[in-house]
Parts: sequence; C-alpha cells; structure tokens
Amino acid sequence: MTQSDRRDRQPSQDVAVIVGGGPGISSSCARLFARSGMRVAIAARNPDKPVLQNLEKTPGVHRYACDASQPAAVESLFQNVVRDLGPPTLVVHNIDGRVPEIFRKAITEADPVVALATLRNSAFSAFLVGQQAARLMLENTPNANGTKGTIIFTNASAALKGFPLSGAFAMACHAKAGLAQSMARELMPQGIHIANVPIDAAIGWKQEDGTRAHRLAGVAVDDNMADPDCIAEAYLQLHRQHRSTWAFEVVLRPWVEKW
Amino acid sequence: MTQSDRRDRQPSQDVAVIVGGGPGISSSCARLFARSGMRVAIAARNPDKPVLQNLEKTPGVHRYACDASQPAAVESLFQNVVRDLGPPTLVVHNIDGRVPEIFRKAITEADPVVALATLRNSAFSAFLVGQQAARLMLENTPNANGTKGTIIFTNASAALKGFPLSGAFAMACHAKAGLAQSMARELMPQGIHIANVPIDAAIGWKQEDGTRAHRLAGVAVDDNMADPDCIAEAYLQLHRQHRSTWAFEVVLRPWVEKW
Amino acid sequence: MTQSDRRDRQPSQDVAVIVGGGPGISSSCARLFARSGMRVAIAARNPDKPVLQNLEKTPGVHRYACDASQPAAVESLFQNVVRDLGPPTLVVHNIDGRVPEIFRKAITEADPVVALATLRNSAFSAFLVGQQAARLMLENTPNANGTKGTIIFTNASAALKGFPLSGAFAMACHAKAGLAQSMARELMPQGIHIANVPIDAAIGWKQEDGTRAHRLAGVAVDDNMADPDCIAEAYLQLHRQHRSTWAFEVVLRPWVEKW
Amino acid sequence: MTQSDRRDRQPSQDVAVIVGGGPGISSSCARLFARSGMRVAIAARNPDKPVLQNLEKTPGVHRYACDASQPAAVESLFQNVVRDLGPPTLVVHNIDGRVPEIFRKAITEADPVVALATLRNSAFSAFLVGQQAARLMLENTPNANGTKGTIIFTNASAALKGFPLSGAFAMACHAKAGLAQSMARELMPQGIHIANVPIDAAIGWKQEDGTRAHRLAGVAVDDNMADPDCIAEAYLQLHRQHRSTWAFEVVLRPWVEKW
Repeated sequence: MTQSDRRDRQPSQDVAVIVGGGPGISSSCARLFARSGMRVAIAARNPDKPVLQNLEKTPGVHRYACDASQPAAVESLFQNVVRDLGPPTLVVHNIDGRVPEIFRKAITEADPVVALATLRNSAFSAFLVGQQAARLMLENTPNANGTKGTIIFTNASAALKGFPLSGAFAMACHAKAGLAQSMARELMPQGIHIANVPIDAAIGWKQEDGTRAHRLAGVAVDDNMADPDCIAEAYLQLHRQHRSTWAFEVVLRPWVEKW
Repeated sequence: MTQSDRRDRQPSQDVAVIVGGGPGISSSCARLFARSGMRVAIAARNPDKPVLQNLEKTPGVHRYACDASQPAAVESLFQNVVRDLGPPTLVVHNIDGRVPEIFRKAITEADPVVALATLRNSAFSAFLVGQQAARLMLENTPNANGTKGTIIFTNASAALKGFPLSGAFAMACHAKAGLAQSMARELMPQGIHIANVPIDAAIGWKQEDGTRAHRLAGVAVDDNMADPDCIAEAYLQLHRQHRSTWAFEVVLRPWVEKW
Repeated sequence: MTQSDRRDRQPSQDVAVIVGGGPGISSSCARLFARSGMRVAIAARNPDKPVLQNLEKTPGVHRYACDASQPAAVESLFQNVVRDLGPPTLVVHNIDGRVPEIFRKAITEADPVVALATLRNSAFSAFLVGQQAARLMLENTPNANGTKGTIIFTNASAALKGFPLSGAFAMACHAKAGLAQSMARELMPQGIHIANVPIDAAIGWKQEDGTRAHRLAGVAVDDNMADPDCIAEAYLQLHRQHRSTWAFEVVLRPWVEKW
Repeated sequence: MTQSDRRDRQPSQDVAVIVGGGPGISSSCARLFARSGMRVAIAARNPDKPVLQNLEKTPGVHRYACDASQPAAVESLFQNVVRDLGPPTLVVHNIDGRVPEIFRKAITEADPVVALATLRNSAFSAFLVGQQAARLMLENTPNANGTKGTIIFTNASAALKGFPLSGAFAMACHAKAGLAQSMARELMPQGIHIANVPIDAAIGWKQEDGTRAHRLAGVAVDDNMADPDCIAEAYLQLHRQHRSTWAFEVVLRPWVEKW
C-alpha cells in the first residue's frame, strides 16, 4: 500500500475486510466489492498464495497476512486496515475450518486435536473478527441506510443440521451461528447489521478460461453447486439493506439441492 | 385494460401478480415492479377501494377483483391476467387474514367461525394462489437466471413463533409457512423460486405528504416499523436471484426489534 | 355409561379424552390410560367401528361419537364427558386428517376441496378440542404436580418440515404446531401443560396375534415404524411431569429413521 | 472402590457416568440413578469438594477426578470406570462452561482467552466425553429396549437462541447442540440413544433443610427455576425409552418461564 493509495480514499467510501482467501466466495467478494467502489482488504494465513497475488491486480484490492485464530493477529489486521484504508464498514468472515481429517469421519475415529483446531479456526476466529469489527464499527457514523457497518458470517449447511460423520464440523458451524445470533441481537439495535449466511451447497467458481472449478480436483461442477459471484451479490445486497428491514439469516441453496 | 395495452406487451416482459391490496406492502410492490418495467396485476376483494384506484394511475398497474379464498375466483383471476398481461413470472401472496376478532384474544374466547375464516383467508388462499401460479409458471421458458417464475408468500412473525393470545393467527401463519416449504422442495428443482418472507414488524408506509402511516389510526410510526418500500426491494432481489443461489426464507426485521 | 359407572368415579381420578379413534396411538393411549387408573373417553366420527367396540371392553374406556371439525359436536362431546366421567385432566388430539387424495400429490394436481377439508379435520379440529379442553381445565384444581390438565397434540414430521408433494398436509401439520405453541405460551403459566408431539415415523401397532400391522395393507412393519404403546407411554410421562420442568415439544422417532 | 464393590456388580446392571459435579443436576442424577439400581460414577475437576464427598455417601455412587477438557483425562476417566464399575450404559455430560467473565458482557468487552476456554470446557469436553462413551457403548449388547447406551448432553436455552451479551456462551451451547445432533444421526442407527436437553431455566436445588438454593447466593428460588430432581427423572425416562420411539431433543422449562 503506497502513500498515494492512502490519499485517494474518499471519506464516504466503503471499506471491506474479507477474512479467508480462497478462490471461491472470498475472491468473488473482493472483485465485486472493489468493482462497486469499495476499498477492499483480503486477509489469509498465507497472503502470498497465487490466488491472492492475482486478486491484488484488481484495483482497490489489498492483501494482508493474518492467522485469524490468534487474538493478536486479528487485532493487528484491523489496525493495519484502519491505517491503510480507513475504518471498515463491511466485514466478511469466510473461514469454515473444515479439514479432511475430521470430515466424513466417525465420531469414534475423529482426532480430538483436529476437532479443537476446527473450533478455533472457524468459530473462535469468527469471534475474534466479529469483536474487532464491532469495536471499530460502533465508532462509525451511520450511512444513508442508517448502517454503521455490516458483518457477514459465511456458514455451511452444518450450521442448520448436524450431519452424521462430521461432529466436529457441526460443532464449529453451530457455534458460528450461535455467535452471529447473539451479536445480531446485541449489535443491530446499535446500528450494525449482522448476517449469518449458510451456503447449502458446494462452491463451483468460474476460472479464467470460463470453466468452473471445485476445491477437490476431479469433482465436476454442475447445477448443484453455488456460483460464488451470486453469493457475493447477495452479500452486497445485505450490506445495502435499509435498517428498517434487515435480514439476519439467509440460506443460499442451488435450485436442485435436496434439503 | 384496453386493446392497445395488450398489444404493448413485450414478450420478455415480467408479469407480476400481487394478491392483496393494502396501502403497505402490496402498494409498494406494485409501484416498484411497474417502475422496474413489469406489467403488474393487483387483486383485492374490493378493487374499487381508493388505495387501488390511486395505484392504477401508476403506468403498468392493473387492478382485479378476487376473493382469494374461493377456488373459482382465484382460477378466474389468473385466467384474466394471462389474457390481459400474459403468463405471470412473479406472484406475491400478501394476505395475512388477521382480524381484530381473533387477535390478542384468549384461546378460550376466540370465535371458532372467525378462526376458520382466518385459516381460509390466509393459508387456504395461499394454497389456491400458489397452485394457479405454479401451473402457469411450469409452462414458462426459464429467463437468463434460469427462473421460470417466483412465488413469494408474505408472512408474519407468527409463522416463526406461536405467540399467546393469537392461536388462530399462529395456525394460519404456520400453515402458510408449511405450504411454502413444501412448494419450495417440490418446485425449485422444476425452476420455480419459492420464498417465505416473515416480516417481523408492523408496517409503516409513506403517505403522499411524506409522513408515515400504520393501519391502526393513532399508532405512531417509528423505527420499530418496517418500510414497505424496502420490503418490495427485497422481493425484487429475490425474483432476480440466479437459481444457483436461491434464498427460500428471509425474515425482515427492523434494527431495533426484539426477537 | 351406566349410573353405577358414574358413582364409581373417585374425585381425584384422572379423566382422559382421546379424540381420534384408530387402532394405533388412540387405542394404545386408551388402554394404557385406563390401566393407569384413569377414566377414558375415546371419540371418533364413527364410534361403532370394530376397533372402538373392542376397545370399550377395556374397563374404564367409554366411546363417544364426534365429528371433531364441527364446533357444536366438540362442545357437546366435552359436555357429555363432564357429565359421564367428570372434567378432563388429560386430552389427546390424535387426528392428522391425511387423506390419499392429497398425499404424495403435486401441488398443481391437489384438489382444493380436499386441501381445505384436511385443514378443517386436522388443524381446525385441534383448535376446537384445545379450546374446549382449556375452558374446562382452567377450572380444575392443580394436582400434586401443580398441573390443572395436559393437552397433547399428536403431530407428524410434516410439522417440522414441509415435504414435496404434500402441500396441504404440510399446511395442516404446521398449523397444528403453531396452535400448540401459541396455547403453550398462553396456558402453561395458567397451569395447563401443552405438548406438541410429532411422530417422525409410520405407526406399526401390535395385533392380537402378536404380529404388527400398518394402516396400509401389505406394508411390512419393521424397525422403521413406531410402536404406539411406546408413544402412549411417552404421553403418560408428559402428563405426569412436574410443572417445574415441562417439555413442550417432543419428536419421537425410531432409531433407524433418517432425518 | 474396593475389591468387594467390584465383585458385587450384576452383569445386567446399568453403569452411569456423570461428568460435571455440581449440587444441581449432577447430584440429582447421581442420587436417582443410584436409587434406581445403577452403579454411578460422578466426575469433576475437583472431586474433593464437599458436595461430591457428601454424594459418595449414597450407596452406589463413586467419585472421580477429571478435567474434561483434556483428551487424556477423559480417556483415563472412562478406563477407570470400566475397570471399577463396568462399561457405561448411561453417560450425562453436564458442563456448561459458563463463567462470570463472559456472561452478560458486551462482545466488544469479552476476553478472547475466556471465550476460548468456554468453548473448550463446554463443547470440546462434550466431544471428548461423547467420543469415549460411544466407543465403549458400541461394544455393549443391546438391553431389552434395544439400547446399547444413552448419552445425554445437558444444555441451556442459549443452545436454542443466541442472547445478547453472551456471544461466547451462545457459541459453546450451539456447538454442543450441533455435536449432539450429528452424533444422534450417526449413532442412533447403531443403537446408541443420544439426547440434547436444553434446560430453559435457572436451577434451584433442594438443600438438606428442605429449602431450595441457587448457585448465586441471594437469588431467591421460585417457580421460575427448574427442580433438578425433575430433570434427573426426565433423563431416566429418556434412558428407558424403547428405541422404537427415541426423543432426541427435549427442552425442559418451568411453567411460568417466558420463551
């Protein structure tokens, strides 16, 4: 971030922070938010991975390093964003912490160390990010919609239903949903819009060549997968809702998904 | 509806049907949908009430008479809309059937005749409207979002929670929610977007003089009431969602509402 | 009911009313409640069907005719029970109104007349029965558990989830759940225990020869079906709960059921 | 535990493990389970506190030391129970991890270290206890009800609703509920009954002098508090349910509680 970047900031400009840096929802959000005139920070444990290096070519997008399960790292991320881009008005927590070691694994077989790490990486990092975001946003002046800021928690269908063979993931997703609900009841009357958005689908993102991809190689992308560009669009609409009619929980689901 | 009106219709133009004709959500929807280029039918038991006469001055809005609790009347409404405006692509059911005789009344005191009428006017009319809409929409060609049509059921917080002193209203709202959910699971995979939208608030609409009003005279409109223009905006966004990421249930709630 | 029957009643004896008279839950309840020392009324549209004639051989069980979708018939049923057995302390509404004409039928094909009848037979009859029961129970003296009476609504999984191809049934079951919840919030603080019990299973009852049967001939009874004797046992436990710890909703589900 | 104690065990005798050792639910469970003929292990971080020393005077009750947030400690607890009392058939996880530092505290003020400790003490310990219990129970022979064992998670109303000013507690309770639901779907078809029991109330237990007490000194016990003896009774009924009709989630709530 150069000095000139900093001078360009409009006082009324939205500042978005996206925590989690994959090629799906995070990348779609970064591109759409930047295209909509926001200054965008995207944070990941390893900010040098190719997907983030690529993303930073989009004007307005800036990448940051952050292990979001560490209190000091999250505090530092938000301080850096404020210094570089200004106080955030839109924060997206986009980490689900799912790891192969505990997914589709019998409760009797799941490694407790990995289960605890999942809770930390997903739910506890959401707590840390939500806390820092709330502290800063409470100081913001409400915008034309009466909103001091929007905090969106991306979630999974495991937040709605505890599936078999994924006890630790069900814990983490439910925990994140409970946190979001508590924060909504606490912070909405103070002008901060909180949303929990379980995506009841796998994600299939568009690649540069126009084909779609999924995080597991060899999985065909089809109608049963959600397009992250559409999810980003929904997030932008949530951010722009007037406080007269805020939605808290929105489940996004492909038309052919069974539920 | 004149002959020239009919000739003006663009083949690709959205046709909206709004069932229920109050000054709040129905009116806001009619105006916004028309302004967005749709041809709009608005139906009420008494289409000659001033609010609807006024509304018809908006270009593109047409009013119809329909007692939505009567199967033949609903069938006839949809036939007339198809004849006049074309097959519907967006249908909003906006009747909650709440009447003073059963609201805030002990279960021991509620009149069974009124309770049954509430079920008929709210839930059963939703069934009739949803059925006619589905029959027609299944014949539509999907639009650019992959959508053959959208059916939105306006609902109340009583769909989420059965409050004391309103057993009959809780029945009606829950019934409508159950219908919507069944239709969503059945029709979404066939290309029809179904949404249940409980409004967890009283409605305070804007009057011509800029002040806001509520259906009960003397009730002050404040931050705790939802602005129906914002609700209409949310409905339009639901209608325009890509089928990759459809929302089924969206609760809209003012920022200061307790829940 | 003979004069001597009436004289036998103990002042402290429980009086149970079961509305709905099938060979499954209603029969199991009647037998268990009678065996537990209650005086039991069982009401059905046609009280002369063999299953009820048989049931009346159980000491303490009395059968009544009642079309529970008719306000006057329900009022009359309760008057007769009070006259014959005393004021009720336990009432079970056990009608789901499911008919083949609307079950597993596309929303576009379902007959509106049958859909409305389903709402009347299930949800509206629950309203009528709940209303009469509440009026009488409010006059009861609390028993040792602090309970003036218990009203249990048997429900189905369609109360929890609107399944495809069963819109009308979803409406009816959701309506009954909404009514129960409203009554619970209203009447529990007045000493009446309300419970909604969705049975997430088909019912397979024991026949006299020890084999089990299901309402559809030819359907094999297996582990995936609920034993109505166990359901009756759960109802009795609900009735006997101390008001310090009342359960409102209990979903009963066979161990191998998918949910 | 003496050698003679061990010899006394009947092969068919239930063995209960209660994790958490307060004077409320845990003590009531220990006494009722022992009175019902079970051999009972009660485990707490500090097993020497007076309440547990007292409890061990009840015949059949044995106390164990266990920091249930530590994988090795939980594994060791279950090994010791198996050695002393036999393989468990009923396990109750009764730790909510609520500490004053995070309860009724704004999200902006809550200490992250305490928030993470709450997640560990409540949800993660439930995972550890559930895992050990499941491993052992899967080896049991089903009893007359077809049950290999029952695992009950005591929970709080924060599992159902995220209240303001308690984000970390909402996370922990939701996580425990998600775990329970996942385990239910996974283990019920294998013969283990899983239950999540949110107690929507404060607990007011009976003291030796007949008066009731609450964990906060000076809080008067009234009708709005749940009697833990009644909760223990509900747990015993859950354990004894036939697998034809298992309840998974039961919310227990005093009659006068608002919800």
